[in-house]
Amino acid sequence: MLSASIQLRGEHKSRTSMLKLFYALKTCALAPHIALEEAGANYEAVRVDFASNAQRKPEYLAINPKGRVPALVTDRGILTETPAILAFIAQSFPQARLAPLDDPFAFARVQSFNSYLCATLHVAHAHGLRGYRWVDADDIASLTAMKKKVPQSVGECYELIEREMLIGPWVMGTDYTVCDAYLFTVCQWMEGDGLDVARFPGVNQHRQRMSERPAVKTVLAQQST
Amino acid sequence: MLSASIQLRGEHKSRTSMLKLFYALKTCALAPHIALEEAGANYEAVRVDFASNAQRKPEYLAINPKGRVPALVTDRGILTETPAILAFIAQSFPQARLAPLDDPFAFARVQSFNSYLCATLHVAHAHGLRGYRWVDADDIASLTAMKKKVPQSVGECYELIEREMLIGPWVMGTDYTVCDAYLFTVCQWMEGDGLDVARFPGVNQHRQRMSERPAVKTVLAQQST
Repeated sequence: MLSASIQLRGEHKSRTSMLKLFYALKTCALAPHIALEEAGANYEAVRVDFASNAQRKPEYLAINPKGRVPALVTDRGILTETPAILAFIAQSFPQARLAPLDDPFAFARVQSFNSYLCATLHVAHAHGLRGYRWVDADDIASLTAMKKKVPQSVGECYELIEREMLIGPWVMGTDYTVCDAYLFTVCQWMEGDGLDVARFPGVNQHRQRMSERPAVKTVLAQQST
Repeated sequence: MLSASIQLRGEHKSRTSMLKLFYALKTCALAPHIALEEAGANYEAVRVDFASNAQRKPEYLAINPKGRVPALVTDRGILTETPAILAFIAQSFPQARLAPLDDPFAFARVQSFNSYLCATLHVAHAHGLRGYRWVDADDIASLTAMKKKVPQSVGECYELIEREMLIGPWVMGTDYTVCDAYLFTVCQWMEGDGLDVARFPGVNQHRQRMSERPAVKTVLAQQST
């Protein structure tokens, strides 16, 4: 079904129905990948090769017409959008305690954090390499101007996260949630976005703490092979 | 507590604890405003005057450090980000049936739709008037280039919504959800974004259907006074 440019990276576990996560390297799909691993889910991770533009090919557009990752294939249908997928994983594997599922206010705080990363931080970051979404692709001057502002616009997001959002030791305080997987994911872009990471000690400590989790090590190893 | 530039528009109902929604005219805060009304919630709607830049003043930044709307004040704390607030309203007023709360997959589809409006459609729209978020505010050429692409980038969102997402009669099919309030909200910007609305008959019919709902009429009347 998939073109050769979409390589299969299978992780098989003998549990409930199989989920299939389409991801690409260095993208926000790392977040649901970590969440699936933390949840002990029965899943396959399928790599989409952005270098060969596999996400724009008919085989993948049939899975996700947006031509983006992540996409999560379930036995009910396909889900897209990182915040929605993260909440779905948390709700589908309640025993993993990846979100405060029985408290609408606490759950909304988790969702608010994820929505901010998705619609503000990730969007600011995307102006570095994907500015053609919002100006003509041959308008080099505007694309350059967008790229130039990334350290400032993304930096302002981390200032707000450091000052107002990240409670510690985890984003929501004492309980680890899907927010932690998502924050760790976007942090992978900090250096490439030209940020002085030393300005954000709380974020850095969180990143270090995350990198020591077994599930995170497993997923990073999977994605690097 | 609030500066004179933030006018109070109160709606009082004798139910559970009072919620307070900060909104501004012609913004995405219309979506949670409609959802609160549909839910029969006990709420006040407080207008923030964007014309006088009230959202950047200390009084409002103490409520929402992001300087944006919506912000929902609850007895537990303040929530921001439209998709998170919409899910919170749906979960807090289950009898209103504003989302499929007992079905994680169906709930994720609601959230996926809302996340797309927030992080893709709304972001594309914002390049028309708020391009200074992503390039220098005095870079008129880039700001103009961004504004010029809005009909195309927002138009592509509506093409996807029309073709793939809007099932009808409501976004999710037979059941009305918070997605409908959110779609109706962003549709208010179609003409201003230079779209030929006749290209999207399904979206237009949805918009008409929404405008006939009593809750929508109530909220639009509140916001126009």
